[in-house]
Order: sequence, then C-alpha cells, then structure tokens
Amino acid sequence: MIAAVLGSGAWGTTFSAVLADSGCRVRLWGRDEIVAEQITTMRRNDKYLPGITLPAGVSGTTSARDALSGAKIVVVAIPSQSARAVLEPLAEYLDPDAVAVSLMKGVELGTDKRMSDVVAEALGIPLSRVAVVSGPNLAGEIAAHQPTATVVSSTDEATAALVAEACSCDYFRPYTNPDVVGVELCGAVKNIIALAVGIAQGQGMGYNTTATVITRGLVEITRLGLALGAQAETFAGLAGMGDLVATCASPSSRNHTLGRHIGQGKTLDEAIVATRGTAEAVKSSRSVLALARTVGVEMPITEAVVGVLHEGQSVTEMASKLLSRPRKTEGL
Amino acid sequence: MIAAVLGSGAWGTTFSAVLADSGCRVRLWGRDEIVAEQITTMRRNDKYLPGITLPAGVSGTTSARDALSGAKIVVVAIPSQSARAVLEPLAEYLDPDAVAVSLMKGVELGTDKRMSDVVAEALGIPLSRVAVVSGPNLAGEIAAHQPTATVVSSTDEATAALVAEACSCDYFRPYTNPDVVGVELCGAVKNIIALAVGIAQGQGMGYNTTATVITRGLVEITRLGLALGAQAETFAGLAGMGDLVATCASPSSRNHTLGRHIGQGKTLDEAIVATRGTAEAVKSSRSVLALARTVGVEMPITEAVVGVLHEGQSVTEMASKLLSRPRKTEGL
Repeated sequence: MIAAVLGSGAWGTTFSAVLADSGCRVRLWGRDEIVAEQITTMRRNDKYLPGITLPAGVSGTTSARDALSGAKIVVVAIPSQSARAVLEPLAEYLDPDAVAVSLMKGVELGTDKRMSDVVAEALGIPLSRVAVVSGPNLAGEIAAHQPTATVVSSTDEATAALVAEACSCDYFRPYTNPDVVGVELCGAVKNIIALAVGIAQGQGMGYNTTATVITRGLVEITRLGLALGAQAETFAGLAGMGDLVATCASPSSRNHTLGRHIGQGKTLDEAIVATRGTAEAVKSSRSVLALARTVGVEMPITEAVVGVLHEGQSVTEMASKLLSRPRKTEGL
Repeated sequence: MIAAVLGSGAWGTTFSAVLADSGCRVRLWGRDEIVAEQITTMRRNDKYLPGITLPAGVSGTTSARDALSGAKIVVVAIPSQSARAVLEPLAEYLDPDAVAVSLMKGVELGTDKRMSDVVAEALGIPLSRVAVVSGPNLAGEIAAHQPTATVVSSTDEATAALVAEACSCDYFRPYTNPDVVGVELCGAVKNIIALAVGIAQGQGMGYNTTATVITRGLVEITRLGLALGAQAETFAGLAGMGDLVATCASPSSRNHTLGRHIGQGKTLDEAIVATRGTAEAVKSSRSVLALARTVGVEMPITEAVVGVLHEGQSVTEMASKLLSRPRKTEGL
C-alpha cells in the first residue's frame, strides 16, 4: 500500500517509519527541501528526529502532488491551526479512494471544530473516510521502537480497520474504536489536566496527589464527553487514560512544564517566559470550561486551573478549594 | 467520635492521624509496647513513621480491650494473612454498634476471601457494618499532609457515609462507592500490573510503554471485575486507576521493584534476593490467572507475567507476544 504523510515534524516522520515498518511505501511530504532531501538520500531527519535511521520504505518530497498520487492513506501531521489552509489546495491531488488520517490534537480556533471535521471539510471527503490516531505516543520513544499501543478511530469500521492494518508492526499496536468524539475530546482536554498535575508537582506534591488529579481529572473529562455523546470506555482507554498518564509523566510536555512553574509561584507571564512560549491549555481551559457550563457539567479541576491562570487565584487556595467540596459518591 | 485503629504500622498510624485531624479521638493499638508508649507520650512512631508528629487526638495502647471500648469505628490495618487470627479474640470487646473498616489489600490465602469478608467473619458482624478504604494512598505522603483522595466503600450507604465523615479533613478527601467487590479486586490485582510495568521499565522502556501496560492492564482487571459482578466505573476511579498510577510511579512498591529486576535480566530467585523478599504478585498472579480462566476472561498481561515468573519465558518474548496478538477493538 502507498501512503502519504503530510508534515515532516517529529510525529509525522515517526509515523512514516511505523507505516514503512508495517509494510507501506511511504512518501513523506514537507516544505523544507533540505529535510526532504535528507530523508530520501540519507534516511534521516536530523532537524526533527535526530539520531534515528528511517526504514528504507520512506522517501521525502516537497511536491504534494507526487506525495498524494496513488496514495490510499493520507496522514495529516501538521500544526492543527494551519491544517485547513494547508489541506484545501491539496484536495485536487487526492486519490478518489483515499482515506485520511489525522494525527492532530485540539480544536480549530474560531470554528471550535474537531480535527477530523477540519480534515474532511478541507479535503472534501466524507467523515467515513477519515480516521484519527491517538494514544500514549511520544514520538521519540516510538522512533526508538519502544513498544506502545494506540487507538485508530473512525465512524466507519472499514476505514479504521484499513488504517489499523497499515500501521501495525512489532512495536506499534493499534486498537480500533468507533467513538471519534471521545477520542478527539481526550486529546483536546488532557493538556488541562497535565497542567493541573504540573501545578501540584510544582508545589512539591508527590505520587498520591498526582494520581488523584489524573483520576479525578479523567472523571470530569468523561462527564463532559458523556454530555457530548462520547462513550465512557474511550476515556478509560489508550487515548484517554493512556495518553494522559504518558503526558503527565513525560518532562517534555509543555503544559506540564508550564504548570510546574505556576506551582512554584511564578505568575502566568513569568511561567510563559520560563516555558519559552505558551502552552495549549492556557487558551483551551477557558473554552472547555465555557463548553462545560453550556452543557451543565461540573469540572472542578478545569475551573481551578482557569481560576489560577486567569482569575488571580493562588495555587494554595486551589488545593484547599478542591478538597473542601461537599463529600460525594465516586461515580460520574 | 471515638475510633480504634488496630495496627500501628505506617498505614495504621497515618490513618490514625487522618481520623484525629478529622475530629475523632483515636486509640491506636499495637503489640509493641515501646511504640504504644512513644505514641502516647511523644506523639511519634519512630519505628514505622519516622519524622512525623501525630495530632494530639491519637493515643497508643497495647490493650485491645481499652482500644475497642466505646469505639464506634474500628479500623483494621494489620497484615492481611494474620487478620483473621488477630481479630477473632477481639470480637468480644467490640461495641455493639461499631462499624469496622479494612485498610488491607489482597485475599486470604486458603479461603480466597476478600478482606471485608474476613473482617466481618472474624468480628462476627454483618457486611453492612464493614467498609473498606482504598485509593492512591502512599502513607508517607499523607502523613506529610500532601492532598489526596480515596474511596470508602461499603454495601451499606450509611456505613460508608459514617466512615467518610470520620476521615474527611483538609488533606484527605473520601468519595463513597457501594461497589465493594470492585474496590477490593482493584487492590488485589493492581500489584500484578505494577510488576508488569516494572518489567518493561527494567528493559529500558519509557513513558509510552508504561502508560500502555497500565491502561491495558486496567482493561483486563476491569474485564475480570465485570465477570465477578463489579462496576466498570470503580476501575476508572481512585481505587483502580488512582491507586495503580500512584503504585506504578512510586519507587517504594515491592512489586514494581521486583519487576524491574526481572526486566533487567535477573531470574525470579535473584530478583527476590535483590528486592529483599518476595512481592505479593509473585503468588497472586497465578491465582488471578486461574480465576480468570474459570470465569472465561482473557488477561494477556497477567498471563505474560505468569509466563515470565513461573514458566521460564524470557522478557523479550513477553513484549513481542503481547504486541503480536490479533488486532481488535479497544472495548472491554
């Protein structure tokens, strides 16, 4: 099978290697000519994935037409907010049977659309030909062939099965799941919880507090998901709990790192400087809280994060507020 | 309210402090006279909880009769396998209205009974007067007042509410849950998954693999729980996911540590020596797998752990076996 991967960053390049190791011939498209050239001639991408030799089945190109011609699977791994603008002009090169795969997280600012919707609209294909891939998938570890699993989600079973088969190899194990809303919601909201965990750890808290914030955080994400038509099991799965646990453990998460700085007593502005740029949850926490209020769902951790980031609440207040809520049963 | 805590180890002593900080008068019973004396006179337990000053509401005693007289809540925090023998002779001192609380994990060898059943039988009280407490509750962190949450579970709502009220303070937040089977099963099986995570980390695997083993491990525990009448939500909660995430992150888990040694290439005997004693999952993995087979539930990670610990399978075989299973959907 021929696959095109759009975006030669760390995750796009790593996923190209997974596809090639699973038997695909992969054309990896990016705008940077030096990167494309190096991928083809040296099987390396020193700029975005240093130290890794790519499998022979991956070639680089800067021509989207060449990449897409005859490709039955088109993987999109570009920054979420540029996706629509980048994809629209490429629609004409798409193979009529091609299936698109989104590796992107978050929602499109302005439209509040999930990335699978953005991909379908921009490429002019039905949602049944779109899948999303999400899970505990830190690119560097996959590139080093450390075993992991992931979720391939599509409203169409055959689309999910096709993509799962195309990216199934001895270090990467996909599970299919029809709950696209749940899978994409996990990816969009997990960063708020990762930021809250960072705040707790920045205050010197250990494993209990971390595990409590992760668990209760996932409960509130699940509550929101159920209100939006998602399935509870998705949140307990690899795209929910799995991705959240990996993100909260990894020192490379920007949201986690920014939270730590806040927990150590920095202001938001100081934390953004220390993190060298903002983190997604700084913006998304407010939109998620607004959404939760619209659908009548309680999200106390998200509310506390918004309070600390945007309403001048202190981090010590945050913990005591969360702990002094009325006693309740554990369920959703 | 007067509470008795039986067992002056780290967790019994810490839980005594939680009860006292929540407004109870606590009598902490243990057999060691020096420990009891030090608790009463110096408000310390240097042997099991060094560095911590206990609240004024905790006193120590070696007399079970004195401890139990008038106590409305009786907390049991003694080694699981000694519980029945220690409790039976104390039944006569129990206040007729008293509620018992198990802090113990695991099942009784020989009878395969859960600890709430053992407590009810040994004290001669109905299950409606027994609760269990379980969650991300590493004793040392709670003793240092780091915020955490927990689950108080009983078949009787009033019993759970009474216990939750008695142990609710500004660093400890209990949630009630009626699913005792699920809560106790989580506590008994999590160590197998912690051992599997240790094996992966001992082989040098990072965050993705860890998160995958935790997530898919919880899926297989949940599957077993559903077959035994438990509720799926419990496994996604504090006693399930919460405790598992804390246990797998903490370097103090014996099961996790033993797994790491195995992952680094040691034999089981060598790993037991390096861990200075065996770990619970070494035995329980076989009983849990037998139980799973009886009820017809697939538990591939537990099976892999048994294979490595007891059937001479290599740890490298373990990963490739888990990853090469037929592709499937993510659900339970």
